Amino acid sequence: MSLKRFICYGGQIILTVAEHHSAIVPWQFVSQKTGATLKYVGLTKEEVPDIDQLKSLLSNKTKIVVVHHVSNVLGSMLPIEEIVTWSNKVGAKVLVDACQSVPHMAVDVQKLGADFLVASSHKMCGPTGVGFLHSKFEILSSMEPFLGGGEMIADVFQDRSTYAEPPSRFEAGTPAIGEAIGLGAAIDYLSHIGMDQIHEYEKELATYLYETLNSVPNVRIYGPSPSQTGHRAPLCSFNVENVHPTDIAEILDLQHGVAVRSGHHCAQILHRTLGINASARASLHFYNTKEEVDVFIHALKDTIDFLTSQH
Amino acid sequence: MSLKRFICYGGQIILTVAEHHSAIVPWQFVSQKTGATLKYVGLTKEEVPDIDQLKSLLSNKTKIVVVHHVSNVLGSMLPIEEIVTWSNKVGAKVLVDACQSVPHMAVDVQKLGADFLVASSHKMCGPTGVGFLHSKFEILSSMEPFLGGGEMIADVFQDRSTYAEPPSRFEAGTPAIGEAIGLGAAIDYLSHIGMDQIHEYEKELATYLYETLNSVPNVRIYGPSPSQTGHRAPLCSFNVENVHPTDIAEILDLQHGVAVRSGHHCAQILHRTLGINASARASLHFYNTKEEVDVFIHALKDTIDFLTSQH
Repeated sequence: MSLKRFICYGGQIILTVAEHHSAIVPWQFVSQKTGATLKYVGLTKEEVPDIDQLKSLLSNKTKIVVVHHVSNVLGSMLPIEEIVTWSNKVGAKVLVDACQSVPHMAVDVQKLGADFLVASSHKMCGPTGVGFLHSKFEILSSMEPFLGGGEMIADVFQDRSTYAEPPSRFEAGTPAIGEAIGLGAAIDYLSHIGMDQIHEYEKELATYLYETLNSVPNVRIYGPSPSQTGHRAPLCSFNVENVHPTDIAEILDLQHGVAVRSGHHCAQILHRTLGINASARASLHFYNTKEEVDVFIHALKDTIDFLTSQH
Repeated sequence: MSLKRFICYGGQIILTVAEHHSAIVPWQFVSQKTGATLKYVGLTKEEVPDIDQLKSLLSNKTKIVVVHHVSNVLGSMLPIEEIVTWSNKVGAKVLVDACQSVPHMAVDVQKLGADFLVASSHKMCGPTGVGFLHSKFEILSSMEPFLGGGEMIADVFQDRSTYAEPPSRFEAGTPAIGEAIGLGAAIDYLSHIGMDQIHEYEKELATYLYETLNSVPNVRIYGPSPSQTGHRAPLCSFNVENVHPTDIAEILDLQHGVAVRSGHHCAQILHRTLGINASARASLHFYNTKEEVDVFIHALKDTIDFLTSQH
């Protein structure tokens, strides 16, 4: 199955405005190559992707639905099983960006049922330079390779080559050997702690982070509150009235040794939808504690005082 | 500059039959996408790529010339500076696969003058999962990205994106951070030993390997002898009459602890040109010694006795 046969002119690709650039830009390339149209699902007033709108956009023109599992900015989680059921019913495939869920909870790829699911190693205590794509053998078998080189071939002739079976077909060149071994060790490490335990602990941490941050005057947190949603990841993207998030990150780092990210977090379309250019983001993993959240909140209050007294 | 504008229908891509699959298969993809024709340079009777033929194939139809610096099977080296001069004269770009030269000698990219030069980290004592492409800023600036994601964008809109300046434009996603740092450390390590010293030492080792291996009865080494060429890499691809190279590799490993590779070494077209399906290959780096070559030769003689007495 070639890309053009799979996603043809007149076909539609559905995404949400909350996707990470890594799940948007490749589909813009596909759109430019095939003539398919990109359709974006917006946000509800609770600032989560509007799955009713997603459902209403689905039709037999839909070729693929590209959605995050957990949002890296909003902290919210999408109901993947339902999205897969609706999408597969109209003949569309589903690709799930699970980079923000796999490191934080037990993810059962067979239960979710997505046609494609991706995650990256460096977000789950593993090395940089490696990640994974999970799919079904019959889908992968029907796909053509997109990178050429050693390992991915069966036979190379002067004018053409035949290709190895999946997964080798998609692994051109000497593999990231050390990285794959490192990722395996990271998975063993996380599994040993227990993904359910990590998830339970982080849930508590997430609520604590949200509530304490929300109590700081002039702070606006994006995404749903823990009470509005069944899942809130242990991260908060926020802004402080009349203060630039980069200044907050800078002062938190230099004066308090607290690291938060500032910018658009590879989600410019989402930030534009929220009416902002940038936000600061505090994000936690299982090795963080409530005491560290307290340190952050204290440092943030100091930082806000410092920055607003300069005005 | 899009690929189709650069390499159009009727355009020609020149390669040699001795290229590694990683320098062939991607150009087959380009040929299939653009309608350009692949032209292969054959071997001389000394079993090196015929650069007179390469010169004669060049015309204003030639868009790119793809050549190895040092062959991973023949051990021979191509005169890149001359090839670049001839190619650029007809308006063709040159891409050099330097994976087998960069780890073994001082390579001056500015002196070679190639438009593109690639090498991989894992062949130069560095980590897996990383390598590099060297090119000129004005060429890279005129090229479109081929992978989309974080880091490589300037601005992402719903239907399109604008891209960062090179090199970021070609580095989608979180970079292979640990790997790049590791490669830097490997380069420092090699540079500290001295690339010229490594080259001088390996030259002696290469001649010793060739001569001692050549003295073993019924052994046929591929590629030029050290006396036929200005450069012979410290590797020998060979076959033994009536013995399969995989059997040789297997017995050398199991009975003697000596590691050689057997197969087509990602160079099926070259093996077909040499009239064989596979070969065994002994390859050395600066940390090997003449004593180790002696161990290999002794083990090989034993292995041949063992395998031929079974017949």
